[in-house]
Formats: sequence, C-alpha cells, structure tokens
Amino acid sequence: MQLASELAKKGQGKTWTNPLVGAVIVKNQEILACGFHHQFGKPHAEIEALNQLTELTAARGATMYVTLEPCSHYGKTPPCAKKIVEVGFSRVIIGQLDPNPLVAGKGCQILRQAGIKVEILNQTQQLNPAYNFFYRHQRPWVTLKYAMSFDGKINAQSGVRSILTGQKAFLDTQQLRAKQQAILIGENTLKVDDPQLTVRLANLLYPPVRVVLVNDADQLDLNLRLFKSTAPILLLSRKKSKREWPPQVTVLTDDEWSPQKVIQLLYQRGIQSLLIEGGAQIQADYLGAGIVDRLVIYLTPHIFGGIGLPAAFGKATPNFINYRVINQQQIGEDFRFELIRTKEESNV
Amino acid sequence: MQLASELAKKGQGKTWTNPLVGAVIVKNQEILACGFHHQFGKPHAEIEALNQLTELTAARGATMYVTLEPCSHYGKTPPCAKKIVEVGFSRVIIGQLDPNPLVAGKGCQILRQAGIKVEILNQTQQLNPAYNFFYRHQRPWVTLKYAMSFDGKINAQSGVRSILTGQKAFLDTQQLRAKQQAILIGENTLKVDDPQLTVRLANLLYPPVRVVLVNDADQLDLNLRLFKSTAPILLLSRKKSKREWPPQVTVLTDDEWSPQKVIQLLYQRGIQSLLIEGGAQIQADYLGAGIVDRLVIYLTPHIFGGIGLPAAFGKATPNFINYRVINQQQIGEDFRFELIRTKEESNV
Repeated sequence: MQLASELAKKGQGKTWTNPLVGAVIVKNQEILACGFHHQFGKPHAEIEALNQLTELTAARGATMYVTLEPCSHYGKTPPCAKKIVEVGFSRVIIGQLDPNPLVAGKGCQILRQAGIKVEILNQTQQLNPAYNFFYRHQRPWVTLKYAMSFDGKINAQSGVRSILTGQKAFLDTQQLRAKQQAILIGENTLKVDDPQLTVRLANLLYPPVRVVLVNDADQLDLNLRLFKSTAPILLLSRKKSKREWPPQVTVLTDDEWSPQKVIQLLYQRGIQSLLIEGGAQIQADYLGAGIVDRLVIYLTPHIFGGIGLPAAFGKATPNFINYRVINQQQIGEDFRFELIRTKEESNV
Repeated sequence: MQLASELAKKGQGKTWTNPLVGAVIVKNQEILACGFHHQFGKPHAEIEALNQLTELTAARGATMYVTLEPCSHYGKTPPCAKKIVEVGFSRVIIGQLDPNPLVAGKGCQILRQAGIKVEILNQTQQLNPAYNFFYRHQRPWVTLKYAMSFDGKINAQSGVRSILTGQKAFLDTQQLRAKQQAILIGENTLKVDDPQLTVRLANLLYPPVRVVLVNDADQLDLNLRLFKSTAPILLLSRKKSKREWPPQVTVLTDDEWSPQKVIQLLYQRGIQSLLIEGGAQIQADYLGAGIVDRLVIYLTPHIFGGIGLPAAFGKATPNFINYRVINQQQIGEDFRFELIRTKEESNV
C-alpha cells in the first residue's frame, strides 16, 4: 500500500476532478505490475497496472493493492471493479472507501459478490484530503493562508503592498497553490497587491481558478496582472457586467457574496479545494463564518507597529473555533505553521 | 571562566543594582577557592573567594578568574583590585570589563600598575545583559512581552480579559519577570486584566517595581489585586494625587508620560531592565518609539477573528526596526519566540 500511495502521488495536479490513485498487483509475494491514475479522462490506476501485464491471465488469483475503492460506474472509463472480477483476482486490498456517492461501497459490493476477498485499510485518506472532504461535507476544503509579522500584521500600512516573506517561503506558497483548485481574494488585495495568483513553478494541467470578489467587475483595470494569464478567472461581482471579457473570465452577479454563498457556488462547480489568500476583511469574514478548515501561516521576523493592517480584521462576528498546530517548520527566515480545526480533523 | 560564570548565576535576583559576578582562584592547575557575589551590600565575588582560603598567602602567585573586572572604588565594600594586589596574585583573567563608569578600566589599571598580568576575554557579557546595556546606553534594557493568537490578537475582544497561554507558558513568564527590575502596563490592562504583576514562584529579594501609566491615580480602585502585594508600585499619573497611599506606592505626576520620559525616569532610578506587559496601545507606543530591545512572544493556537484586539495597535508612527529571532521553542501548546533588534545585538 505504501508503494501504491507513492505511485498515486505521481498524478499530482493532473487528475482533477478525479482523486490520486495508485495500484500494485502482487502474486506469490512478487510484484507483477504497478499503475497510477495519470490524468483526468485517462485510465484508472487499476487498469494502468493491468496494462503492464503481457497476459491478463498472469493476474488470475493475484492480489490487487489499490489506494481507493475501485469504481463501480461507467464514467469516462468502464468500471474497474468489473474488470478486476473478469481478470479473476482472488483478493483486493483497498486503502480507503470512495466517498463519491457514485461509488461509495458499490465497488466493494461488486468484488465481494464475485467471491473476491476484500480488505479495507483506512490508511490512504491523506492522499486526497480535498476530494474526501468535498464528498463528506458537500463543500470545498478551505485553507486560509497569510503571512504575518511578529506583531500580527499582514501589511506595514493599510493600502500599501508589503512583501513579508523571503524567497523560500514564496516557493512554499507556490507549492501550496499548486495543490488547490481555486484561489480567492478580495478587490482590495487585487488593487493593492496586483497579484497574478498563478502557479509559476509548474506547468499545471488544471491551474487553480482565480476567484475575486468585486463590487463592480466593469470598473476593473484590464491591465492588472491577473488578466495577463490565461488561467481561469471567476469574478463574483455585485453589479452586472456589460463588458466583453477575455475567454478565461467568467463573471457572476449577486447582490451579496457571503462566504456561505461563495462556498456553495464553488461546490456546485465541482471545486474540491479553496485557498483564501487575503486580505484582513476576507480573512475575518471566512474565519467568522466557520468554514476555514486549515490555516497556513508564515510568521515573518518583522515588526510593523501600530498602523500596520492586522490579520483577520473587521466587523465579522468571531467564531471561536479551536485550531491545532499539526506542522511547524522554519523556511528560510520565516516560520511556517499549519493548523487544522480541532473538531473536524477526524473527518478529513 | 566557565565555572566562575556558573557560580555567578547563584546570585540571580539578589544582587541588584550590582551585577552577577563569580570568581575562581587557581594555582599550579589546582582550584584553591571559589566565590560569587551573593547579595547587594555583601562582599564581592573576589573577596568571597579569598575568604575561602585559610591563609591569604596561599594565593600569592596564583591566578584569579573573575567574570567581571574587579572594582576600583570604595562603595559598600573596599575596592577588590587593591585587595588582589595586596594578596600578591600574579595573573588576573577577566570575563569582561565593567561598563560602570566608576570602574570602567580603572580596576585593570590598578592591577597592571602593580605588575599583575591581566587578560580580558570578552566572554561573560551574557551574564548581565541588562547591567551592560544600562551603562552602555544610559537607559534600561527593554523587553516587550505578549501572548498573541495565530491571527495576531492579544485579546478575543477589546475590554475583555482573555487567557491565551497554557500553564507552562505562564510559568515561563514568571521566570521572565523574575529577571526584571521593573514591569510596565497601562491603565486599561490594569482595569481589564486586574493583574498582580508579581513573581509568585520565587521569593525575590528585589521584586520588580510595578509601573502603571494612569490618567488619574486617585481614581484607581484600591481593591485591585495590584495593591494586595507589598512589592513596590510606581504610578505615573497625569493628574496630581491627594490620596494617602500605602507605603509601597509612589505616585509621580506629569502632563504626559511619553515612552522616552518613562525610560529616562527609570534610568534615573537605577532600573536596569524593564518588561512591558501590555496592552495594544502601549505595545505600539514603545515599538514606535524605537526603544524595544527584545521581544518575547507567545504564539497560542487560537483564532480570535475580526473583533479581537490586535497586538501593537494604535496611532503610533511605526518604526521599521528589524528584529531577529534568536530563540524559539514549544512550551506546552504554545510557541515562544525571542527576538532582538538586529542593529543593537552586538551592543548588549
């Protein structure tokens, strides 16, 4: 299962909306074949492994290790569970059940009905935290990320862009972005920081959708760096747009884009993970709404003093959610902390 | 010198306004005697060591290791340098020169003029950071301490007391307080938190002076926990006091107590170290004034959200002083960071 998990990770960034999956075929304590899900629309891990065999008959009576329950439905590819039955495996060891209601136990049922011995290990959930969260909670897995000075400021002065973290922490945030399906900021951050919100270090098949909350989309300056990239942009505007937009831009209108409404919209669009990147008001709103599942905080050795813009600041009702530090490390001059909600941790 | 330093630390909390000093007498590679400065007014470390000898003549031709330059002046005790000459030491190895202008090289001069070989190692400055700082910069060494949530708040809500840190961090702050000669807070912290500002875990000979900035001392409630302890209290009031105060309380009046003015006053009163304990406005004022030499920050795994009171918050002009993390450790559930000013570090 360890090997299958390592294989699964090779699909990172290419399988959305599918999860990462790896599979290993073993017979008489010998590995016959390995496979992983390479890309959305391409064969599943189990089929990839079978394709490594010169003769399918070699797998008769073998054991399949697979990080996720084999699928039971006809999607882009035929159901893997049926294929496993056809080949004549005697045992299937499964990393975790598939939370996708299209599968959710039905894969195992097909295998067991065919007399195949099935074991479920509950070991591989961390391969696809967002995928699991999405199906269990019917919303994206939300990470809030910010860099903060040692006196709790995200900016030296409101309205002025401050570069807080060093180069190593910058590279780390690129890694973080690369694993997300959407990134959200507010209009203020868009104007002050003029960010690209792209993943510059990897050529991603599915770059994160860049979501921006704006008052009036038609008032935005098209020379902003955001519009230079062809990665998808979703503008959530309070005023209707009459503009002609470049093809990567979608504009949706509503009177009010509350955190709940945004999250619901992203869920409907199949977005399994969301990274919130700023600023103080958005941080306060989403923390207050109780839908931040994870925090990634870069603490930087600066002191900005009394007129810096505090993290998570505004009028939102606070929600006293407890978080727990699950990871801490020094990255260059900065200190990275990862926190998860205490209540939800067992559900990821 | 290592041994002399360890001995010196035994005087911790008892020697103010004197520094910690340790001394070791060595002859023919053998330790003849050890001593340290036990308490203000009691013999200096060199004399303590000499007192261990049955015959002073045993130290003739010996080497004295002492963490600080022997004194040259008549204070509570006669000058140690002269005593060392009298005894007939052939060599004195000194940890650091004494920055106190009453000594400052004069001790060495006496020794050298008597033909004693003198070596100065510059190794023991860290034994007495506040003492050294005080004489080099003519002001107390200032430490700002606060506990902060992971979204940069010192309080869940302005005006409400929040206990942020766990028991282990509390014990740590007690250790920090024990090494200070004064602790400063503002009126708001006094009223909201009602702190004792005492060191509860050690019976200190010189408990820190509790300094409180208030608008009108006569408006203070004498039932506050601050007044329960007999440790000295210095109230810096903007309005004149007509009250009769308990003996441990001193009230001084001025129209405005700027950080500079407070620091100058404490210097004049011989206070070598100051710990600032809160709140947001005081933190901002003292950081802004550029006189915070060290920060001790406890980061606690809470998120307080948009209406929490930010650290170092107010109208003060920020002063972009760079700090450097010199120490970090996990204390229970909390994370302790110690930072010092980048520019000043070599001067401590």
